[in-house]
Formats: sequence, structure tokens, C-alpha cells
Amino acid sequence: MLKISEEVAMNKEELHQLLHPMKVIGLGGNPALNEKIASILHQPLIETAVHHFSDGEIQVNIGESVRGCDVFVIQSIQDPVNENFMELEIVLDALHRASAHTINVVVPYLAYSRSDTKTRSREPITAKLVANLLQLTGMDRLITVDLHASQIQGFYNIPVDHLHAIPLLGQYFLDNGIATKEDDDIVVVSPDHSGAKLARNFGQYFNAPIAIVDQRGARYDTEVHDIIGDVKDKKCIIVDDLIDTGSRISSSTKSVLAAGAKKVYVAATHALLSKNATEVLNELPIEQIVVTDTIKHTRYPDRMVRISVDQLLARGIDYVYNDRSIHQIFDEQNRLK
Amino acid sequence: MLKISEEVAMNKEELHQLLHPMKVIGLGGNPALNEKIASILHQPLIETAVHHFSDGEIQVNIGESVRGCDVFVIQSIQDPVNENFMELEIVLDALHRASAHTINVVVPYLAYSRSDTKTRSREPITAKLVANLLQLTGMDRLITVDLHASQIQGFYNIPVDHLHAIPLLGQYFLDNGIATKEDDDIVVVSPDHSGAKLARNFGQYFNAPIAIVDQRGARYDTEVHDIIGDVKDKKCIIVDDLIDTGSRISSSTKSVLAAGAKKVYVAATHALLSKNATEVLNELPIEQIVVTDTIKHTRYPDRMVRISVDQLLARGIDYVYNDRSIHQIFDEQNRLK
Amino acid sequence: MLKISEEVAMNKEELHQLLHPMKVIGLGGNPALNEKIASILHQPLIETAVHHFSDGEIQVNIGESVRGCDVFVIQSIQDPVNENFMELEIVLDALHRASAHTINVVVPYLAYSRSDTKTRSREPITAKLVANLLQLTGMDRLITVDLHASQIQGFYNIPVDHLHAIPLLGQYFLDNGIATKEDDDIVVVSPDHSGAKLARNFGQYFNAPIAIVDQRGARYDTEVHDIIGDVKDKKCIIVDDLIDTGSRISSSTKSVLAAGAKKVYVAATHALLSKNATEVLNELPIEQIVVTDTIKHTRYPDRMVRISVDQLLARGIDYVYNDRSIHQIFDEQNRLK
Amino acid sequence: MLKISEEVAMNKEELHQLLHPMKVIGLGGNPALNEKIASILHQPLIETAVHHFSDGEIQVNIGESVRGCDVFVIQSIQDPVNENFMELEIVLDALHRASAHTINVVVPYLAYSRSDTKTRSREPITAKLVANLLQLTGMDRLITVDLHASQIQGFYNIPVDHLHAIPLLGQYFLDNGIATKEDDDIVVVSPDHSGAKLARNFGQYFNAPIAIVDQRGARYDTEVHDIIGDVKDKKCIIVDDLIDTGSRISSSTKSVLAAGAKKVYVAATHALLSKNATEVLNELPIEQIVVTDTIKHTRYPDRMVRISVDQLLARGIDYVYNDRSIHQIFDEQNRLK
Amino acid sequence: MLKISEEVAMNKEELHQLLHPMKVIGLGGNPALNEKIASILHQPLIETAVHHFSDGEIQVNIGESVRGCDVFVIQSIQDPVNENFMELEIVLDALHRASAHTINVVVPYLAYSRSDTKTRSREPITAKLVANLLQLTGMDRLITVDLHASQIQGFYNIPVDHLHAIPLLGQYFLDNGIATKEDDDIVVVSPDHSGAKLARNFGQYFNAPIAIVDQRGARYDTEVHDIIGDVKDKKCIIVDDLIDTGSRISSSTKSVLAAGAKKVYVAATHALLSKNATEVLNELPIEQIVVTDTIKHTRYPDRMVRISVDQLLARGIDYVYNDRSIHQIFDEQNRLK
Amino acid sequence: MLKISEEVAMNKEELHQLLHPMKVIGLGGNPALNEKIASILHQPLIETAVHHFSDGEIQVNIGESVRGCDVFVIQSIQDPVNENFMELEIVLDALHRASAHTINVVVPYLAYSRSDTKTRSREPITAKLVANLLQLTGMDRLITVDLHASQIQGFYNIPVDHLHAIPLLGQYFLDNGIATKEDDDIVVVSPDHSGAKLARNFGQYFNAPIAIVDQRGARYDTEVHDIIGDVKDKKCIIVDDLIDTGSRISSSTKSVLAAGAKKVYVAATHALLSKNATEVLNELPIEQIVVTDTIKHTRYPDRMVRISVDQLLARGIDYVYNDRSIHQIFDEQNRLK
Repeated sequence: MLKISEEVAMNKEELHQLLHPMKVIGLGGNPALNEKIASILHQPLIETAVHHFSDGEIQVNIGESVRGCDVFVIQSIQDPVNENFMELEIVLDALHRASAHTINVVVPYLAYSRSDTKTRSREPITAKLVANLLQLTGMDRLITVDLHASQIQGFYNIPVDHLHAIPLLGQYFLDNGIATKEDDDIVVVSPDHSGAKLARNFGQYFNAPIAIVDQRGARYDTEVHDIIGDVKDKKCIIVDDLIDTGSRISSSTKSVLAAGAKKVYVAATHALLSKNATEVLNELPIEQIVVTDTIKHTRYPDRMVRISVDQLLARGIDYVYNDRSIHQIFDEQNRLK
Repeated sequence: MLKISEEVAMNKEELHQLLHPMKVIGLGGNPALNEKIASILHQPLIETAVHHFSDGEIQVNIGESVRGCDVFVIQSIQDPVNENFMELEIVLDALHRASAHTINVVVPYLAYSRSDTKTRSREPITAKLVANLLQLTGMDRLITVDLHASQIQGFYNIPVDHLHAIPLLGQYFLDNGIATKEDDDIVVVSPDHSGAKLARNFGQYFNAPIAIVDQRGARYDTEVHDIIGDVKDKKCIIVDDLIDTGSRISSSTKSVLAAGAKKVYVAATHALLSKNATEVLNELPIEQIVVTDTIKHTRYPDRMVRISVDQLLARGIDYVYNDRSIHQIFDEQNRLK
Repeated sequence: MLKISEEVAMNKEELHQLLHPMKVIGLGGNPALNEKIASILHQPLIETAVHHFSDGEIQVNIGESVRGCDVFVIQSIQDPVNENFMELEIVLDALHRASAHTINVVVPYLAYSRSDTKTRSREPITAKLVANLLQLTGMDRLITVDLHASQIQGFYNIPVDHLHAIPLLGQYFLDNGIATKEDDDIVVVSPDHSGAKLARNFGQYFNAPIAIVDQRGARYDTEVHDIIGDVKDKKCIIVDDLIDTGSRISSSTKSVLAAGAKKVYVAATHALLSKNATEVLNELPIEQIVVTDTIKHTRYPDRMVRISVDQLLARGIDYVYNDRSIHQIFDEQNRLK
Repeated sequence: MLKISEEVAMNKEELHQLLHPMKVIGLGGNPALNEKIASILHQPLIETAVHHFSDGEIQVNIGESVRGCDVFVIQSIQDPVNENFMELEIVLDALHRASAHTINVVVPYLAYSRSDTKTRSREPITAKLVANLLQLTGMDRLITVDLHASQIQGFYNIPVDHLHAIPLLGQYFLDNGIATKEDDDIVVVSPDHSGAKLARNFGQYFNAPIAIVDQRGARYDTEVHDIIGDVKDKKCIIVDDLIDTGSRISSSTKSVLAAGAKKVYVAATHALLSKNATEVLNELPIEQIVVTDTIKHTRYPDRMVRISVDQLLARGIDYVYNDRSIHQIFDEQNRLK
Repeated sequence: MLKISEEVAMNKEELHQLLHPMKVIGLGGNPALNEKIASILHQPLIETAVHHFSDGEIQVNIGESVRGCDVFVIQSIQDPVNENFMELEIVLDALHRASAHTINVVVPYLAYSRSDTKTRSREPITAKLVANLLQLTGMDRLITVDLHASQIQGFYNIPVDHLHAIPLLGQYFLDNGIATKEDDDIVVVSPDHSGAKLARNFGQYFNAPIAIVDQRGARYDTEVHDIIGDVKDKKCIIVDDLIDTGSRISSSTKSVLAAGAKKVYVAATHALLSKNATEVLNELPIEQIVVTDTIKHTRYPDRMVRISVDQLLARGIDYVYNDRSIHQIFDEQNRLK
Repeated sequence: MLKISEEVAMNKEELHQLLHPMKVIGLGGNPALNEKIASILHQPLIETAVHHFSDGEIQVNIGESVRGCDVFVIQSIQDPVNENFMELEIVLDALHRASAHTINVVVPYLAYSRSDTKTRSREPITAKLVANLLQLTGMDRLITVDLHASQIQGFYNIPVDHLHAIPLLGQYFLDNGIATKEDDDIVVVSPDHSGAKLARNFGQYFNAPIAIVDQRGARYDTEVHDIIGDVKDKKCIIVDDLIDTGSRISSSTKSVLAAGAKKVYVAATHALLSKNATEVLNELPIEQIVVTDTIKHTRYPDRMVRISVDQLLARGIDYVYNDRSIHQIFDEQNRLK
């Protein structure tokens, strides 16, 4: 008789594939990234017809059977945010009714994450609304990148794998010799008070001190603000979780230069680049703007470098599918520090 | 001691207003209709700041306290459907967190109602998804007009007040002498098989027979189809719940004319007018196209008459607020038949 | 080392059987059909003691362990409807507490489907109530046949496999030479306006035109109604989803005969045959009444032919159990048209 | 200005009636009791059309508007249990969709209460199923009488007002001089081990000792069992929560007589009287069988006295409606002890 | 090709282990019992860091990956009850977010089970609250021992495996020759009316009659009560589900001795031993107090014998994990009777 | 007839009191604060018997009827955290079953708020667990003070009134002349990077710059850290949301002194004072430690000033009860800035 424990023991992953094949669906938010991730996973993107009709409705048809499969749906909730969000919701409904075994949602950029609290009376907490709406459809797991606040994980009752792209940005600076652990002229700058923790975290890659742009009273306009901490004659790396209209980067850049900084770099995970951000950034004397490709655009600012999160997300998907601990990814990332 | 039962008994409605004042919010789908309804109710639309940001996100702030109030939110889920839907969802979240006493949603046109069943494998049932998403936010009631299928009421666990605008259209034909109960040259025409029941219902206003456009095999293209029933030398009133791209009206018109109809009228509740519907309709030899104002556009086809549902919805709101039976509205409407 | 991917790959279904054996339970609604389905599946019906006690309560005991099994419970919710429904509910509770891996409910006839909307104030939507009550017990899937309205699928948040018996009826007419695609004297007749779509669909098997019994004002009494469409000197096949008291078939038969039809056939999925339907039908000059065996009776009208849905449901169960797409069943059925 | 606090303060109840009028619905389980309760409350039973159709389905229409009302639905879930239960469920669905302010369910006899635990593998817990099914419909409160086990209250998440009819039975014995606190020849007898607590409780009305019928091994057949405790030359009052087929009363009666009892009385809340209970009881040498009218029958055993729970339930309804503490009812009842 | 059905069929359990390995976590309530159970299962207890901080909060970290595993968490909810309960809840939250395949909770002693009903107005039903709180965290199953009332199973919607330790106590008396089926001087005594059924059940092991301590009016004080049934010159075994402060055992012992009993033994599943129970019990002339080790203490009364439930719980876990019927355990236990 | 609109219009609040009287319950976490709040509201604390039994269980009985009342339960979830939390849960269950009209929970200090995200694999998010457990009991609203992260509001689906005590602390410094808007030697210091935003906010009261203690690598030990920003010769006010063991205050104090600060003050909302915090703080050269009384202790550090949140919470309760906007409280608080 076959002694399964000996001969088959190495094959848990093959058995799982047999019982619950992986299927990957890429939606319309950021198709280029979908393709890259699927390619790393050696999985075709399964055909999914998504029509946006002339009356504004979206219609969806999944191209092949997903009964009993572990499905991973990749959708970046980028502009047009509400279209992309509803596209995702409708696909989730279709997958649920089509008897997928598990539904795993991979969201490189999760919009509305900044609406994570009530700052005034009668405001919504839209990040919680989004969490509730997503969970309603019976999804089993969320994989996402650099949430605006890590507390948003707690908005979900399902497991959330919160991956970090910040280490990829740190690695870029190290790999390209822009900053090293030995340099003593690097300062990591937070564009506001809330970002001090991220700046401290990013500073660890270069063993660098931090500084904070002290936006007192002013509302992110382009004025020059005070700097808490010392940036004189330093290479400043302004770090943020996202770049929206560019105005915050603009005022921060001007502020550190006014305070005597010699060079300015920018690092951020999500490049929203809304309104005239590209023009705003092009006019600033920034050496490089290093971002990831969680969001796709048709054109980008000059001197913008886009690091891909494809390997990161593909590993996340692979680890989830094969019941391996995501912890390993964090461990490797922390080795840089 | 004050004998409340005698003197106050007539004042239940005043008492209710004291305890739970009515507040009406009008969202961006169809502001003109919002204004009309509010005006009939002698209620101001409360100020609600809704910003669609350059990054695609929507932000909402309700302008005054709604604690303890019975709030009625009017939003037509018309094109851009997903923007308008999310706007509504976000406002509902804000109202819920702002401690409204009840949240009543008034939706003159509810998009996605045609996705009410799975016609092929791996399709969503988006009308059910929409119902689930809406109910998640803790709304207490839905008031809407002429759903594509009345079964959609059953997608909701909360009370749904399903109002009918079709009687308003019937009344228009009667009031304007286009058709009377005595005419024997009126035929009410359904553009497809599913609409036969609506046609029969509409026919009752004129004591008229019905006919059906028999779209065998063909998919709503502009060809001429067979007609079941007799339209020769008749005034045909084609009746439908909605006009989308106009192609169905177009083929129906051509079909009844080919079958010898002498005049063609069109009646429909919801005028979506998507794609080039206006051009399509303008080129057809239709006497009049009678619709309601559940959906607003910037321009309309020639010969289109828009009947307002403002009185209908205002009465619906008033009856709900004052615990009167919606039944009375139906009773009055049925008296016409 | 054993290369599972090569040698085991063909054996997904065997592996699944090993991990989650199929168990089939047949309840008391329609035991003959249960037996037929189980026999096709080569599965014994597992012993389930269901006692209806003298005080009116039902007691249930499942005869063997179902821990980790994929259980399929077959119950036709036919008369006595409420007894059969509660019997099903109680068995579902027992299965849930007995740790079944999945609970799949197979309902050849689902009562209350006609209560799918509110037609008057203060009515329930019982089909939705039934859906909510069933889903409460933790069932994973519903397999059913020819719902009164396909929208009822949307009353469920779990996957619903909605199988169609209408093609079996069409095939019977073709196989027995009663109607062919070449005949030009066939008309498919809908007994009311709501059934026009079903009639059109059924007409496709014979390439036939349709007609509609125009029940204006009258409420399904035995009067003769107008016919929309041409039935003179034709073989009429009246098609409906169910035959209840037979009065609708009766008035339709009389109406088409009065309009000159030469022969009348009836096709319907569910034969409820309530009240004195058998007598009513026996007195009508109908050639044949072709129905399925979703509902069992002790006696049937003369000239009634019962086609079994056993193969259809057995295939449905088999495809669900083995994660194959139900789509294939629909594809084969459509080939007839 | 009107000083409401002084003049209106006494009128909370009138105000409540103005805002949320009480409406009482009586369903078909036990109409005589419904009438009595409504009469005590000076409330008409509102017209509710409940049709049991020939195909086994139930259809319901509530005869008048209940918008904003506090509705009390009275239904005894007696034989036919499942019909009565579904009738109740369907009415609850209708009330919920008809916008009742609160839905309060009054169940004099709640069937399935004995299925309150799993005694064997693969059994349901039907009393919990019933609780879940009832709560699904959005009911706000349950008022019921003498549950088989008081733990069943915990099956509900909504408030349950568990009223006791046992004191009414005790009072009957006292009022009619059958037993007094001074008699020393009274023994209260429990027909099985589980009922010892009820017997002790009932014994307090007469300051009496208790005895237990020790049904070892035998399953409630008509044999004579041992008695734990002393019944020789005593008046025995056998007390139980319900009388089903009468076999337990039969064996208990025979056992106490065999042990030398001089007279036997029976007291029980719910008289199910299923199977041939009436005949069984008529043949026993019992002085009187005192029960309540929670269940109606067409005929009753000789020597059966039926005490009405009408006042008890009417007070329960009144106290709930007027926010008075049910506690007062218990306090008064305990004064007898 | 490998014929899995033949060669692998025996290896369902190995396959299951491959796909969903068993992991056992032991929490702080009763670590000695955790160790014993894990040892019987040949499973290490996985490292789980549980810190009770100086500010009163508990922090938890699971030491190894549980993705895809079937996790069994053992926690006795003994004193400090609320600490142990929250410790369990927090671990369940961590396991859920860490993507365990199933979460099975093993609770040797489940506190709050006596709060299973409302005995007075405005009391909680804490056993139901506990059930609701536990189920909220997404646990899949509860395994527990001798609940205070078996109805508590019905407080849960998930499967509950209710194991019985009473047979182990019976076996101890048989194995040690304290009581045999042939002895005619054994009486099993219930300390109150509610326990009569347990006493009768326990009596079956020795073919013994039962007696009941009749605590009329008095509230478990140390007075001597009447005895229902005959204990004169008998060996009395007082049986109860738990021993709390010992006062009930104390009064029962005194009562049976006063009634002429010659020897007293005590049997109970759960030894809470709260307040000064140890002293109280030490002062009583009891031969032996036989309990289980569901609860751990630092010291025990003299003459207390602790039977371990380790084998019982280990078998329960094993049967659940391997989809075997728990029924077998009951069957074997019943063979003793 | 009484014209209610004129004469009664001013009396909405009186009417509300009549229909739904306010009842206030104070639990055992911080009784002194409960008393103060109740006294400001001119409401007695209703008698609530809460027993912590010797076996570790808690038993609760509410002393008077709460049917139809708006109940406010005040409980500080301070050490012993789990006891206090369960006490609250059990009272909520009792209130729910006792038919309270609304249940409003007032939590001056909400423990576990720091566990608001997963920082490592296999950690719980206990703040979300607490939110889920609380909401399960049917509470309607949470009123709390200075959450560790404002995102925790989003963990709740019910309305959360998040009150701020920080302005009270600011006012103390202003009122006592310790700091003024005109001083230029004030620096507000954040003890870590996450607190920069709070420091900036607090700085607005004094128009002061901020500085940050840069705890690189070190884990809150008592070493001296770098300071970002300028504190030389300044009065430093270290501001934090809570003081736990005091070690963070200790290292911050030493760090700013080492950097040349001339005086140190501390401001914090919640004084946990766990472990030997009192000793630690007593040994530091701090001028004053200004906290609130959200948490009660038996002794406090020297130089600790406790500002009461009684007025703040009483106003919150009053505004909620009377449907007034909490916004007004924020507006007044902001006027200080």
C-alpha cells in the first residue's frame, strides 16, 4: 500500500493545486501590473468580459469556470475610483455566485484610505464603508500595499495581508548609491506631523536622522514652512505614503531648500498624480522622485522612477495560496535595515 | 388635567414633527427633481457638501445636525451610475454615523435593475448586489419608481415603497385627448414578450387591445419584426419601462408601421437616452414620446414630453413620514382605469 | 519520489471523494424521484428517520455520520407544503450540527415561488421569506428547476443552480413527432401576458409563432377570452410553468378552440393538480398534457404524460459535486433550438 | 407657555397611543383565546385574511394599515404545528414590509420546545431552529407561557417575556378547596425526574411535600413504576408542563395508586391531547384534570377543567405596550405562596 | 496510472493531515490538562506568547504559522474566569486573522453555564452572552464537558460536541469496588430537585434507586433538609455537575446522615472549590469525593480523587479532526450501564 | 383645539423625557467619576447589583425597570481591564433583555485601544475585537474620550462620539499661567514620532513650536535620546494620550533636560499608572503632571493634577439624549486655540 506520509509529504502544494486550482483575474484599474504579476506566477489572466455600457452600467462575464478554484482578483482602486470599485464589487458577486472556493482580492492601491476617521461632525468614514462593502460580497482575504494608516486592517474582519513597498524604495536608494548607511549628510523628511513615524522607519535604511515640515495653521499651500530638525547642507529625502496633487511635496521641497538643504529627493509608494501634479512636480528642483507602479498613468513627471511591486504582490499571492507565512517577506525586508 | 386624548388626538403629525423633524437631502443625480419635490413638501434641501476630488474620490459633509431626524435622501442613480451610487452610499454612511433617527432613500431611477437574474453562467445579479450594498448602510426604507421587475422588491429585507409612474403617462394621453376609453382605434404595443403584462395594464386606461412585437432570434436590431395582434390602421402606443439607446423603440416603430399602423406614440417611465438615442428617436416618425423626469439630461429628443414625478414622490415621502398608507395613492391611480 | 502532478492529476475527483464523500438524503415530498436520482448517481439514500408525531411536530434523526461529507438533500416542497418545508428545515439544522462539510439542497419544486412580489399593500413576499429561512440554516447551495420567475435566484445570496425542464418538454414533442421545426401549423400559446417570454422561448424548438390569451379584467374564470395572435386551424401548444387548479388551462383551451384552433396540447413543468384539477383537465378536449415528475400524486389526469427530471437533477448534483460547470447542461439543451 | 412636565406627565401612555397605536392580530391556532384577550384589551382584532390554498400554500393580507403601529400577533403554535408556524412567519414578513413600528409575538403554546437539546448524534435542536426562524423576520419581542425549559429564553437574542400559568392552576386548587396550605394529606407528584423542580415549586402553594415517579428504564409505557417519596393515603396532585398523548399521566396515576394514594388530581399548563389522549384520560380514575386554554380542541376529556390564560396574556401585552415592568405580574403571583 | 480509489482509500486521514495539519494551542486556564491531552495526541503544544500586562491588558502572539491548519485551542474557563475568557477571545481573533483553516475550541469547564435563564426581571442570560461572544470570532466548533444544562448546546449555532465525564465517575466507583450493580445498599442522591435526572442517570451504573434532598424554602444553607426517598442504612452517593463553595454538598451530607445513611460519597464533574470549599469539605464525614481535572487548583480537599478527562478530550479532538462520529464515544460509555 | 405647534414646540425635550426617560447606570471601573457625571445631569445612578462571585463569575441585576428608557451606562475599562469589560458586557445583555429603548455606553477610558493594528504576524487586533464584542450586545452608541488613534471610531458601525480632553489640559496651563499664547519659551514635546500630530495640536493653545524625542532603535528604555527641534532653555510640555508605566515620560524628561530644557511639564489624558509608575514619576524633576480623572487609583504621584472630565461627559450625554449636535462642544473647545 502506498505510504502517503513518506512519498507524498513533499507534495502538499501539488495536492492543493489539484483540488483547488489557482485562477487569476485582472481588472481594468492597472492592467500592466496585472500582466506582470500573472507572468511571475506563470498563470494566465483568465478572460473576464467587463463592459461599461453607454448608460453608465457595468456588465461582467467571467470567461471560464471557477467552481472550486482559489481565485485572486487584482484591481487597483485608482482614478476613476468609483468605476473601478464597482467593477470589483460586481466581479466579486459573479465569482461568489459561480461557486469559487475562495475569493482573494489583491488591491495595489486602495482608494478612500485617507477617510479613515471622522474629523468633523457628520462626516462619513469612507474607508470603513469600503471595507464593509467589500466584505459583504463574501471575499475571503485582502492583499494590499502600504495603507494610509495601518489601523485600516482593523476595519476588516477577514484576514488582511498588508504588504510594504517602502523597503523597495529604500533599496532603490541604496542600490543606486544615492544614500548609504555610512553617509552623514542624509536627512529623511516628513512633509507633516503624521508622517514622522514613516520617516523614522525609512531613515533606518540609511542610519539617518529625520526632520519634519511644521505646517502650522497653513493648509498645505505652497508657502515655506518651518522645519523641525536640521536639514542645512543635507541631502533631504522627503518620504510620504502617496503623492496626490503634488502640493504637499511642493511646499516641503521649498521649505527644506529655504532651510538650507543642498539636494532634494522624494520617495512615495502611491503616485496618484491628480489635477496638475505632473506640472507641479516638473517645476520643482527635485533630483529624483521614486515611486511604485501601484497606479498607472499615461504620462509621468520627468525624473520620476517607478519601481514595480509585481514581485512583492506575486510573492504575496503565492504565499497565501500555498499556506506559507507572509512573515518571511517581512523578515527579508527587515534585513536591509 | 389636560385631556390629551381629546384635544391632542388630531395632532399626531405635529407631535411626530416635534420629536423627529423631517430633513430632506438632494444629491447630484437629478437636482432639478430634488428641488421640485422639496418645494412641494415645503422643506428646504439641507446643505450637503459633496466634492468629487481630482483623484476620483468623493467627500461628503452634511451641513446641519440630523440627530433624531427622519431623513429622506433623494438620488437618481442615473449616468454616471457608479459615481451617483457611491455618492449615495457615502452620504448614507455619514447619516448613520450622525445619528439620524431613520434614513429613507428615495430613488427615482434605480440603475442596474435589469441585471435581476443570471442569464448565463458566471454572471452577477447586480440588482441584488446593489440591494445588499444599500441595505448594509442601515437605511430603513426605499422609495422608488417603476422597477424593471417588481420582484426586485424582494431583493430587499427592508420595506420598499414601489410607486408607479405609468398611471401618470396614461393620464397624459387621456388629458390631452390623444386616446380615450371610447376610441376603438387604439392599440397598446409591447416592444417585446416580457412587456406584455405592462401593455395589458396600460391598455386598461383606454379600454384598448394589445399587440406584441415578436423579436424572434434578432437581438433588438433595427429590422422589422412580426407583430402578434392587430395594428392595421390603428393608433399604436408603444409602452415600455425605459428607453435606453432607442433601438428597441426604433425597431418597434418600424415594425408596427410596416404592419399598417397609422400613427405611433411612445410612453415610458425612464428616459435613459444613452449613446445616440436622441438622434435615433428624432429620425423616427413618432407623434409624441411621453416620459417622466426621473432622469435629467441636458437635451432631449424633439417631440418628447416629460411628465414630472414630483407630486408622486412628494406624496410618497409625506405618507411615509406621517404613517399613512401608500395604498391610498394606488387606489386613486386605479380609479382612472 | 512520486510525481503527483503526472500520475494523480487525472484523479481530482477521486481525491475529492476521499476527502469529502457524497451523501444523498431523500425527504418525504417526492420519494419516487429521490430514488431515481440516487440510482443514477449510484448512491444509496442514507437512512433518515423523519417522524411526524401525533401532536403535529416533526422529529428527525440522520442514520449515519455525515462529518466532513458533501451532503445533497432532495426535497420537493409540494403539498403539504408547510410540512415538507419544515421537514427540510429541521433536517438542515441536524446536518449543520452534525458537521457536514457542505449542505446542498435539491428542490425539484419550490413552493411559494409565485409570491415573489407585493401586488397589494400589506402583503408578504413569501418567496423571499422562504429564501431567508432556508439560508439561515447554513446551506451552501440550492439546485432547483424552473422557478416561476428567474429573479428568485436573486433572493438568495448563496449560489443557485437553476435548471430548466422546459427543454425536456420540447424534446418530448419533437421525439414523438407531435411538432417539428418544419411544421407550419404549430402555435405556442401563453395562457396570460406574463408568459409571453416563456412561449417565445418554447416556440424556438418548433420554429413556431406564438399567441397570447388576453385575460382582460376577468380573473382566470372559465370564460372564453380574446386571443392575441393567430390560432385558427392550428395545433396549439399551451405552455406554462405550472398547472395548479387547471382553471387557467381550462379557459385557455376554451379560448383557443373558440378562436378556431384545431388541436390543443399542454406543456408545463410542475403539475400541482390542486383542488379538482384532475377532473377539470379530464373534461377538456386536450390531446396530451406533458409535464415532469417534480411533483408526485397518487393519481393523474388521463392523457397526462410525465417526463422525469431525474437525469437532469442527477447531472446537476454530479456537476456540482465535481466542480464542473453547469453551463455544459445549458449548452446541450440549447442545441435543440 | 404650557408646562408639559406638570400637566402632561400623567399622560405618557396616551401620548404613546397617539404616536404608535396598538394593533392586535389573532391568527388561526386558537381563535377563541385571541378573542378573549382582545376583548380584555378593548381592542378589536384587526382583519387579517389568511388563506390556506388548495395547493398547500398560505396567503396573507393584513386588512388595515399598520404603519407606525405597535402590533401584537397572537398565535398558538398548536397542531397543525407547521401550518400554524408558517402562518405566523408569513404574517411577520407582511408586517415587517408594511412598516409596523414594533412587532410583538404572543405565543400561548410554543411547539417544538421539547426539542431543546441534542440527545443523540445527528439530531436537530428544533427549539433553537424555531427561535432563529422567528427572529429572522425582525420581530421585536416574544411573549409566551410556561416553556418546557426556561433555558429556551436564551435561544433568543430579543427580549422574551416568559409568563407563568402554573400559579393560575395553584390558585384553582386553593379557590375550590381541593387543597389548602393547612392540609397535611397533599403530595405533589412529578411524573419524571426532570419535573422535580416544577413539583417543588407547585407544592409551595399547599405547603406540601413532593414525590417522584421513578421511570427506570421503561419508556413512559403504562406499567407501574416505583415512587420516590411517600404517597400512601394521600391526595396526589400530579403536575406537568404539558399533557401530550396522556401515557405519562396514565402510568403516573397507576403508579401512585399502586403505592396507596387515595385520590389523584392532575395539573398541567398545556393540554396537547394528541393521539387518543382523551380516551386514555377518560379511563383513568382521576378526580379532576386542571389545564389552561393555551391550546384549543373540539372536544376535551371528562373531568377536565380549563382555566383561561386570557387575563395573564392581556396583562402581559398591556404592560409591554405601556413600558411597565412584567415583574409586577410575578410579584402578585408569588404572593400566593 | 495510480488507482487512487484502491490504494489511497485507506489514507484519507493522512491526506487530511497533509492539507490541513492539526495544531494544538493550550491556554493558561489549566495547563497541566493541556499537556496531558497534547501528549495523548502526540502533538506539541504550539508556542503561544500570552502576556498579562501591568495595566491589565492581555497581549497574544502565536508562535508559528497556522495558515491552512485545523487548530484546536484548549482553555478551561475557570477562575479567574474573565481573564481566561478574554485570553481565549483574543487568541481566537489572532487565529482568525492568521488564516487558520478551522478553529476548534476545547473548553473542559465552561463558566457562566449556570446563568442559563432569566430567573428574575432585568437579569442577563450570561451563558448565551458567552455563546454569542465566542461565535463572533469565527470559531467553527466547541468541544466541552458536562454543561450545567444540555440546552446550552442550543445557545450555539455552530456544532457543539458535548462530552460526558459522568461515565468516568461511574466507572471509578465500579472499578474500585465501592459500588456494584449487585449491591442493594446503594442510593444515588441528588442535592436538589433539578438534579433528579442526573441522579437517575448515574444510578443506572449501579442499578440503584435514587433520593432527593428536598430544600424547601431554605437557600442552600447548612441546615438539615428532608429527604425524598429512602436512605436509611444505605451507602449514599451524592452526585452533582459541579462543586462550588461546597455548601450544597455540606447540607446534603448532613441531611442524608440525619436520615440514617451509613456512608456518604460524592461524585461531581467540575470541582470549582471556590471560597473556603476545601475547608468545608474537609470537615464533612465523606468517604471520598470523586471529581475530574477539568479545573486545576493548587490544593485540594483531603479524600478528593481526581479522574482525568484527558483521554476523553483527546479522543474528542481526534474524532473531530478525522471526521469520525463522536457517537462511538457515547456508545462505549453507555455499555457500562 | 390646542395648537401644538405654538405652545408645545419649545418642549420637544420634555416630550422626549416623558416617552423615553433617561436612566444612568454607573459600573465599577471608576465610581467617583460616575457620581460626578450623574450629579451634573441631576440624575440618580440607578441601583445595579453587580456581584463578583468567589468562583470568578459576575452576576448582575438591574434595580429598576428600564423598559422604554434611554439608558446611559458609564464604565471606565481600566485595570482590572477584563473584569470591567465583562461587567459591562453582562450589564448590556441584561439591559437588552430588559427592553431598554436605547443603550448608550459611556467609556471614559477604553482599554486595548493601543492594539489597533497587526504589527507582527499572528497578532490579534484587540481594539477591533473589543468593538465587535461591544456591538454584538445591541448597544446603540459609544461615547468615549481621546482614543489612542482616531481610526478606532471606524472599528464601529454604530455612531461614536469621540470627545476630546486635550483642550481641558490646554486650558489648565492657560488658566494657571504656566503657559500663554505670548510666551516664547514654550515648546511642546512629543515623546515619540507617532505623537507629533498631537503635539502640534496641543502647541496651538500656546502658539508654540514643537519638538520630538527621537527614539531610534531603543525601546522606550530610560536612556537619553536625541531631540528633533530646539528645546534649549525652554519650558517643555511633554504631551501624550496616556501614561502607562511612566518609562516613556521618564526617558523623554531626561532627554529634553539633557538637551538643555529649563523646566518640564507633562500633559496626558489617561493616567494608567501601571507597575511602579508612581515611583518612577515621583523621582523625575517634573514641575507638574496634568492628567484627567478618566481612570481612578488609590494613590497618585506627587505633583499630579487631575482635571475632571465630568462636565465634558455630562454634556456629551445631555447633547446625545436631547438630539443636539456634539459639534457645539468641539466649536467651543476650538475657540481657545
